[in-house]
Amino acid sequence: MPISRADAEALDADDPLATFRERFVVTDPDLIYLDGNSLGRLPASTPARIAEVVAGEWGERLIRSWNEGWLDAPARVGDLIGTLVGAAPGQVVVADSTTVNLYKLAGAALAAAAPRRHVIVTDRGNFPTDRYVFGGLGEVRLVETVADVASALGPDTALVSLSHVDYRTGEIADMAAVNEAAHAAGARVLWDLSHSAGAIPVDLDATGTDLAVGCTYKYLNGGPGAPAYLYVRSELQGSLVPPIRGWFGQRDQFAMGPEFDPVDGVGRFLSGTPHVVGLACVEEGARVIADAGMAALRAKSTRQTGMLIELADAWLSDLGFTVASPRDTARRGSHVALRHADGRRISRALGELAGVIVDFRRPDVIRFGVTPAYTRHVEVWDALDRLRELVATGAHETLPPPTDRVT
Amino acid sequence: MPISRADAEALDADDPLATFRERFVVTDPDLIYLDGNSLGRLPASTPARIAEVVAGEWGERLIRSWNEGWLDAPARVGDLIGTLVGAAPGQVVVADSTTVNLYKLAGAALAAAAPRRHVIVTDRGNFPTDRYVFGGLGEVRLVETVADVASALGPDTALVSLSHVDYRTGEIADMAAVNEAAHAAGARVLWDLSHSAGAIPVDLDATGTDLAVGCTYKYLNGGPGAPAYLYVRSELQGSLVPPIRGWFGQRDQFAMGPEFDPVDGVGRFLSGTPHVVGLACVEEGARVIADAGMAALRAKSTRQTGMLIELADAWLSDLGFTVASPRDTARRGSHVALRHADGRRISRALGELAGVIVDFRRPDVIRFGVTPAYTRHVEVWDALDRLRELVATGAHETLPPPTDRVT
Repeated sequence: MPISRADAEALDADDPLATFRERFVVTDPDLIYLDGNSLGRLPASTPARIAEVVAGEWGERLIRSWNEGWLDAPARVGDLIGTLVGAAPGQVVVADSTTVNLYKLAGAALAAAAPRRHVIVTDRGNFPTDRYVFGGLGEVRLVETVADVASALGPDTALVSLSHVDYRTGEIADMAAVNEAAHAAGARVLWDLSHSAGAIPVDLDATGTDLAVGCTYKYLNGGPGAPAYLYVRSELQGSLVPPIRGWFGQRDQFAMGPEFDPVDGVGRFLSGTPHVVGLACVEEGARVIADAGMAALRAKSTRQTGMLIELADAWLSDLGFTVASPRDTARRGSHVALRHADGRRISRALGELAGVIVDFRRPDVIRFGVTPAYTRHVEVWDALDRLRELVATGAHETLPPPTDRVT
Repeated sequence: MPISRADAEALDADDPLATFRERFVVTDPDLIYLDGNSLGRLPASTPARIAEVVAGEWGERLIRSWNEGWLDAPARVGDLIGTLVGAAPGQVVVADSTTVNLYKLAGAALAAAAPRRHVIVTDRGNFPTDRYVFGGLGEVRLVETVADVASALGPDTALVSLSHVDYRTGEIADMAAVNEAAHAAGARVLWDLSHSAGAIPVDLDATGTDLAVGCTYKYLNGGPGAPAYLYVRSELQGSLVPPIRGWFGQRDQFAMGPEFDPVDGVGRFLSGTPHVVGLACVEEGARVIADAGMAALRAKSTRQTGMLIELADAWLSDLGFTVASPRDTARRGSHVALRHADGRRISRALGELAGVIVDFRRPDVIRFGVTPAYTRHVEVWDALDRLRELVATGAHETLPPPTDRVT
């Protein structure tokens, strides 16, 4: 017998993070939102903060606000994110998109390694934008899985770049082991933390990570397309020159001098004028996660994903579903992937007919993301119950295939 | 006798754009804001629009909003900006920062011209981030002024890139003539429209422009660091490949296929996930300008900058000021630069003691920006009157030198 609904309710009653749900906007309590792995919910404090930034800082103080906090925001919010990913202050800034940040860091690492080393090693299953960016920068050596990275390293390897949590299966890569193997081969490592930050504990400093990037609109709840972040380990900051040389990375910015002369710190990887409203959104979202604490979030997340797998095994294996995420808790991120031959249609039907929002990744993966800051145990139970009902009755077969959604 | 205050009031009474001031937030009617060339005022419609995007589209609709308008926003807002810069639909997208867009377009143009052509020609007075970006991409040939560009073109020239309006003097470059000279030499042209769009008429299509970028936070009133835009002429879109290859430029984005296969149109220059809140800000700001119409805005702008020069000549030449902007109306953008040996301190004193916000550019330039959508003629008159009083009495000498402000 799997866990009962009453058991799930009891877990919610005992949940030390239960009150954090109130720090998010929930307009429809019947809607079960298991897509925080794609777009996190709106923090309750964000609308008022944005209103203050827009009406007060922009509308009233106008240009003066640059000297009243705006110029400091990329580093200030970066340091806040740093507390969530094990980075001491002065190593993270918020800027641009994940894609652009990947380009800047990978490009800088390649330039520093040239001409002796020129290859980027990544895995075939890495997130598309990562692979596309690397393909535009130089020679890419694709390995089948993260486990194959070590055997692909050589004297020509400049950089290893991987997603810390696989965007389809939710599997966690061994950051420390990859870093050690790469360093032993003389290569740098660049991690994409998009599915890690705010979802699972990360310790960039302690694992000897060189470089990292990540988005803020998933588990950091910064909102759609909010500015991303990048990490450069202190010791490397002086030796890496960003390929995109912007005036916000310039030492004496307003001297507007003839040559690019980057600041000493991670700020050299800022490029254009930072988006102030977006930075405020990120700060609000990250603060909720920081207040909850990664240890408590992780404990609840693994309990919820474990429950999800337990229910899937009990209820769904006879309906054509298989669990594609690691059963080993230590290797599992904060979403569970279920595969089903009709997954595309089931995913859409869950949203339109059953009030459960998940997402779909081709060819057959349905992702169920838990966000412990606002997901309740009973929601996980109900989502699987509704899914079982939907597929057992064949209700999903009344729908045509869905259009895609953004991760 | 220069224009009187009563004359300025009469011009305001007859101003066909007078009601557009109500479409902006003005919290302190005594504060004269002549820095729209750096950060435009907050449009009155923006707070409610942002609130709807945040609370409604993000908070309530959540991930579903990507298919309910968000995915189309970069092209939709781009086409709106296109109407302000003479670009037919399908050639402008809103994305990233001006700096990153410069990098993408210049990088693509260099790659297409290689190996035969590899030099970027620009002028020593071009905006810093433009010069820094080019320096990171390849060999830069610096000319003293825009007028020297033609003589610097050669069989090695891949790209000419200039600011359409000089950020210090406000001088307008001859877009058609530069395009013609560059094309005759076999080079492409990339214009930075940051001080042009929304300020002066621009006709990218008719002048045969190849590429352009610009920011949205000056005369387009999109807010601090709002997403920028880029233009790629239709005929070139298929042949230019962005150096930053992101998933939002991919043909079948959600297939997440192995290779970068860019869309046919200008959308290939999108890179990462677009910032939805920022796009909404840009759309609100650009719409006000589109409603006012560039012809009416230009007529008022030249009247105001002409008045400003007339008053400076009459009142300020004996106080150590010289006019650094073109006296020829056709060659003058929407700000006037006055030089003064103590300009740095005068600029700050104007804001802190006289309620007139302008900005300063080293070594000695004070910029007075008029934004015809909200600047009144009497404000220009009062600003110069307060400046005269300030410097004549030596009141500015009570202040230490100011810190810098962002352009």
